[in-house]
Amino acid sequence: MKRKSLEGDVCPVARSLDVIGDWWSLLIIRDAISGLKRFGEFQKSLGLAKNILAIRLKGMVEHGIMDSVPVSEGSAYQEYVLTPKGRALLPVIIAMGQWGSAHLFDSDLPTVAAVDAKNRRPLGPVMLCSETGQPLGIDDVLLLRNTSGNID
Amino acid sequence: MKRKSLEGDVCPVARSLDVIGDWWSLLIIRDAISGLKRFGEFQKSLGLAKNILAIRLKGMVEHGIMDSVPVSEGSAYQEYVLTPKGRALLPVIIAMGQWGSAHLFDSDLPTVAAVDAKNRRPLGPVMLCSETGQPLGIDDVLLLRNTSGNID
Repeated sequence: MKRKSLEGDVCPVARSLDVIGDWWSLLIIRDAISGLKRFGEFQKSLGLAKNILAIRLKGMVEHGIMDSVPVSEGSAYQEYVLTPKGRALLPVIIAMGQWGSAHLFDSDLPTVAAVDAKNRRPLGPVMLCSETGQPLGIDDVLLLRNTSGNID
Repeated sequence: MKRKSLEGDVCPVARSLDVIGDWWSLLIIRDAISGLKRFGEFQKSLGLAKNILAIRLKGMVEHGIMDSVPVSEGSAYQEYVLTPKGRALLPVIIAMGQWGSAHLFDSDLPTVAAVDAKNRRPLGPVMLCSETGQPLGIDDVLLLRNTSGNID
């Protein structure tokens, strides 16, 4: 089923979902952030049909989220690396992982974790901040619709 | 096409996507956070077929993300309100909206914005933090696979 496109939607959440809302895309980005680069590595990690994986990777290259580069100079083998635009999705992945860890695990435990690279300790919760960097709670934030597009 | 279920997946990102990875679910949650409650309000906002919307709302009630409550005592009309588990998705929505605002708008501007409820100013960027609350950059964070599930 072809989904309705949200490509030109006025809401940045909707427009993001148009690019990365596919379930597999976010898992591929998660895997890329955790260090996977090769087609076969993604395939093994995700257990995904090769044709579907190829389509998803192609889409992410087209959207500027990943680059496809030769493994070494002159090599015919490609590897997939996140661009800065792709790496900028880390807070989305972390926020989603923290929500899942808090609400969807019960008798079992997650075996994938985001950690501080310096000491390998788990992160604290993702923090919402005011424009001056003050921490905000969930109830301190409003989502406004139909703003002028520029509330500065 | 029935998707592979990630319900029992060891990764909290994957398990979250199993619950909220559907494109419409995250947009319904966005709308609920911005104040919509009635079936007709969601339908108007999303331009979504009624049967699809009904299935998505039912799924979110089953997953404990929304509650379905009578509009007033004894009313036959229901409205849908986020549970604490549902409201806890706000950082995911904000992180996704900030990424979209930064990377997917060019000539046009977003007309949906997350603001500080006190002064209606836009939020600062979602912040990744160490377990002691120190801000971390994207390159200060690792995603580890196959941990013991408890790296404390």
